Order: sequence, then C-alpha cells, then structure tokens
Amino acid sequence: MDWPVFEAEKLKAFAITVFEKMGCSPEHARLAGNVLLDADLRGIDSHGLARLSGYVRLWAAGRINTSPRITVVHETPSTAVVDGDGGLGLIVAPFAMEAAIAKAGHCGTGWVAVRNSNHFGIAAHHAMLALPHDMIGVAMTNASPLVAPTFSTERLLGTNPIAVAIPAGSEQPFVLDMATTTAANGKLEILQRLGKNAPAGWIQTKEGKPSVNPFELKEGGALLPLGSDYEHGSHKGYGLGAVVDILSAVLSGANYGPWVPPFVAFLQPVSNPVGAGIGHFLGAMRIDAFRPAEEFKHHMDNWLRRFRTAQPVSGAERVLVPGDIEAETAARRLQQGIPVNPVVLNDLHELARKLSVPAIR
Amino acid sequence: MDWPVFEAEKLKAFAITVFEKMGCSPEHARLAGNVLLDADLRGIDSHGLARLSGYVRLWAAGRINTSPRITVVHETPSTAVVDGDGGLGLIVAPFAMEAAIAKAGHCGTGWVAVRNSNHFGIAAHHAMLALPHDMIGVAMTNASPLVAPTFSTERLLGTNPIAVAIPAGSEQPFVLDMATTTAANGKLEILQRLGKNAPAGWIQTKEGKPSVNPFELKEGGALLPLGSDYEHGSHKGYGLGAVVDILSAVLSGANYGPWVPPFVAFLQPVSNPVGAGIGHFLGAMRIDAFRPAEEFKHHMDNWLRRFRTAQPVSGAERVLVPGDIEAETAARRLQQGIPVNPVVLNDLHELARKLSVPAIR
Repeated sequence: MDWPVFEAEKLKAFAITVFEKMGCSPEHARLAGNVLLDADLRGIDSHGLARLSGYVRLWAAGRINTSPRITVVHETPSTAVVDGDGGLGLIVAPFAMEAAIAKAGHCGTGWVAVRNSNHFGIAAHHAMLALPHDMIGVAMTNASPLVAPTFSTERLLGTNPIAVAIPAGSEQPFVLDMATTTAANGKLEILQRLGKNAPAGWIQTKEGKPSVNPFELKEGGALLPLGSDYEHGSHKGYGLGAVVDILSAVLSGANYGPWVPPFVAFLQPVSNPVGAGIGHFLGAMRIDAFRPAEEFKHHMDNWLRRFRTAQPVSGAERVLVPGDIEAETAARRLQQGIPVNPVVLNDLHELARKLSVPAIR
Repeated sequence: MDWPVFEAEKLKAFAITVFEKMGCSPEHARLAGNVLLDADLRGIDSHGLARLSGYVRLWAAGRINTSPRITVVHETPSTAVVDGDGGLGLIVAPFAMEAAIAKAGHCGTGWVAVRNSNHFGIAAHHAMLALPHDMIGVAMTNASPLVAPTFSTERLLGTNPIAVAIPAGSEQPFVLDMATTTAANGKLEILQRLGKNAPAGWIQTKEGKPSVNPFELKEGGALLPLGSDYEHGSHKGYGLGAVVDILSAVLSGANYGPWVPPFVAFLQPVSNPVGAGIGHFLGAMRIDAFRPAEEFKHHMDNWLRRFRTAQPVSGAERVLVPGDIEAETAARRLQQGIPVNPVVLNDLHELARKLSVPAIR
C-alpha cells in the first residue's frame, strides 16, 4: 500500500477549515471534525474525510443548516426529544448524547430521540462519549433507503447502524458498531474499485433475485438485511433495522422508512415527507445505577479476557471482541499517521480549490 | 397434521396445576402458566408446555426455588436490579417488567437488570406487557452456552434473545422476538425428528468446521451467531449476543458467558460461578415521554401499513412485519385450539402420573 500518509491533526485541521468555510461556528466545526477524524483513525475510512465533499454538496444544495439552533423540544427526567434544526448530524448527535449523559447522571439513564438532523458519521463515536462517565453508551440512526425487507423487492430501510459502548477496567472497552445489513455499502464500493464480484448473500436485483454485481444498487437493486435470506435469519436483520428506524424517527418526528431523505445531493428528498430530516436515537446508562462501577468493571474485565483468550478455529490467530480491530487501528494511526486513498486525496484537493482554503500538505 | 387439539384454557389449567404441585403460590402458578401458554398460542411451541417437564426436572434437582422472595436490591428513578432468589424466570421476569413499567410511568423510562433467575420462557411475552401502557417494551436474557463467537471453537454464549414490542393505533403492534443466532435450537430439534440435515450456516463442529448434522451440538459442536460466517456478518450476531449477555448478567450480578448454568437438569452448573443464576434485562419506554401517544400511533400505523403492503418478491404472498405470523397464529389458536405434538402430549401425561395430578383430557 503506497497511499500517502498524513498526521491525524493535519487531516482534522483541514476538515475543521472546510466546516468553518461552510459557515459552522469554530466550536461546531471542531465537533464535526472530531467525528470525521475518529472514523479515519478507527479504520472506518468510508465514514471519514472521504465523506467531507458529500457534506459540502448537501450544504451547497441548501440541505444542511450550518448555524442551527439545536433545541430540546420535549423532556422528562430520563428522556428528551431534540430538534436538530437541519444541522449536521456530526454536531447534533454529540449535543443529544451529552443531554442523555446529563439525564443518566441525574436519574440513572437518559434516552434522546432526534429529529430534523442529517448523517451523523460513525455511530461508535457518539456511543463512546459515555465511556469516560462510567456509562454504557448507545447510538443508532436511520439512513437513506437501500435495504429490502425479507421477501420484498422494495428498498424501505437504510443500513441503520447500532452502536453499543461498554466501559471496562484494565481491558480495552467493548465497542460494537454494526450496520443491520449483511454488508455495509462501503464494502460494495471497495469491490467496485477492485473490479470484483460481491459474495452471494449481500445484495439482490430490483426483482429480488440473488446478485453478486457490486453495481446492483445503481440498477435499482437492494442491500440485504443481516442474515442474507430467510433460511439464515434475514427477518432478524430486517427486524433490527426496523427497530432502529422506529426509535430514531417514529419516536422523534423524523422521516422514516422510504421517506428518509437521501445523503447524496444529486437525489432529491421525497415531496411528501412524514417528518423532519433524518432521525437518531441515543442513550446512556450509568453503571452504578445498577451496581458499583468497580465491581462491574472487575467482571467486565473477566468477560473480556475470557472471550479474547478463547480457543480460535484452525487458521485464525485469535478471537476478537467487538471494537478490538478499531482500537488497535486507532492507536497505530495516531502514532504512524493515516493513509489516505489517492482518489479521496484528489477529491479533497479539488474541494480545497473550490472553497479557496489551503490544501492538505 | 393429525395432532390432538386442545383448548388453550385446558392446557393452561394443567400447567398451573403442575406449578402449584411444585410449590408455587396460586398467583405465581398463574403467572408462569400465562407465559408458557402464550408461547403455545403464538406458535413458539418449543417454549410452551413442551418445556414444562424441563422446569419440573430442574425443580426436582433443587435448582428452582418455588417460593422465592423476589426483591429490588438497588434502584434509581429509572433503573433497578432485581434478585430473583432462584425462582422461575417465568415469574421473576414479569415482576421485573412491572417494575420497569412503574419507573417509566414516573420518569419516562425504566430499565431493570435481573440476577439469580432461571429460564424466562418467550421474551416477547415480557416485552408485550408494556403495550397496554402505551409503552415500548424490551426484554432480553442470557442462556446456557451453545454459541461460538466468530473464529472460535468454544461455546461461550447462549442463543440470547432480544424482544422489542412497539404499540400502534389500529394496526397490529410490532413485536420482534429473535434469538441472536442464525437458527434457534428448537429448529434443530424439528430437523432431528424429521431426520433431515440442517442448512449450511447454522452450526459448526467442535473443531469449528461447517456442519449440517442436526445432532452436532451433542458432539460438542456449536450454533453460529446470526450472519453464519464472517463474510456474512456473524461478528454482528456475536456482538448482539454479547450485548445481551453483558446487560443481562454483568450489569446485574448473574453468571455470564460460559459460566451460565445449563437449562437441562442432567448437566451440572459450573463449580466456580461468577454470579447468581441467569440474568435478564427488561425495559419500558413511555411513548409520551417523547411525543404524544396518539401522534406516535398515527405514524406507527403509517409505518406498519407501508411495510405490510410493500411489493413482495415473485413467489411470496406478502411482506411481513415482525410478530405478524405470531399474532395470526394466536388469534387462530385461541378460537380453534392448540395442536399438541403427540410426543409432547405423552411427556405431559407421564408428568401428570409422576406428580399425581389429573392428566390433560
């Protein structure tokens, strides 16, 4: 791999400059830059600076408000609904997560449904905000419809990710961040670039027939829910994606299902929305609302060690816990820098020219 | 199918008699009978009266306390930890769910972690207790280790189900109840009786190689997490099963992972437990802690209708929403009676003889 490598701080500074140029306040630009960089650090390259020009295009199309008044529109001691005022999800979601954490501090748990938002980056970032508070963090979001329910030809759900971050003592924390599909769209993009077929069970044609064509979505095809087909439990992946959609949007007043506005600026939102923007659902649970945090962490370390030292199958080096690869990648990239795909780098240079800001060097 | 058919009330009365014979109070026996019958009504036959003699054997082995003092041992406004005192999960879980519902009534949501319990029947039953209160219900439990994490040969997790029940207006509610494995153990038992192989992707041998032998678990093999293999996202099913284990047991002080005691009486619990009994996690969220319940139900009906009327693939009659089949089965069986597998009926007759109670007739 001979991709150019950059220091994390340099990439983050570029992202912050771009967000400021879009009209974000310095504080908001810093927040948004943090979320994007976290994706690149953790190796979720599809959700990092590679998305920056996508956000800019949405803003240029008038579909992102860069000076939002983010407000709590309804609340109880353990819940709130946040209106993101059409702002970047990268800014709205941390706001909502901080509200959830504050509520958990007062009454044990906090749950915040968000409407009128946009794409929030990687779910893990928001869930992990709970960790330093000795809380379990939960983050989910709905997204543009690309996924067909089991037995349907229609694209009615997004890849609707779920993240759960659980603190530990001396062991690295448990951080699950998963799309509720068999494979996320980013994995198809990688195959497209390599000119390779997709494995069976990831996608279907617009008639609902199995396909291995990584370009199938452009032909009206759909991603498949986790499980791939009914015999292998795709109704479960579909059910989980549906729960994410309902908690994020039906509970908050955002658009749901096929009404969710597309992330790409070249596709128009539907003309008959059922809510405002896209929706998220964020939660925080204080560990010591259940048992003393030290006691929990002692057992959590024991849990993590047992799974990390489990007997691997022949040919596998070790058994992983959710988040292990990402934590190791982040530690390495923080030290050694972040390799950037030359296609993405060109795109960022182009963006710098268009916005008249200094290019990454 | 020429299985004998019985009225639901008759089967429930038998279950209640057996639970009373085990020493349960009339109130507890009624609660437990309700949960078992609900499984038979909803078509989850593996979790209904078919399990009754399993509970009796555990009780005979001294591993179920039929006069438990179920107590809240710790609480905050939105959380509690319940100690089931070694009682039937069928009784402990509804107690904990009522506590969650009461907390949600006061502060928006309620979350209850349970330790020192036993198998709680179908998760959907407990989650659905929230529906008449215009609340979303959540229920999960850990279970005897039968599932291997991705890339491991070891059985470290149970089938660890997740249920989410969401109220609606005029439409039937949304009720997801799913094992976090590709296929539940009950489906293997059906194949064993039919003498058929399992589909690829459900199980592995004790060395971690693919298998289609429905008896593989008896040879030390394991069930596979939802997703079947890494290429199809089994690390996601493993991650979800792990979250269920941690919320149910590490948070409550129950046994977790490979330390979870077996449901079958002929297998002994481990000699070095890390907690008390098995664990559950139950939650309730009041709809109007987020938005007015009528507004939510209006949109939920719209969501449900859109998915229920989605275009099916060729050869499929319609697109289903989680819980549709179960609700239709329950309505039919309530009217027409419940067909009972003759093997199960024999087992129940045997049980009646052993306990000197009147057999089902």
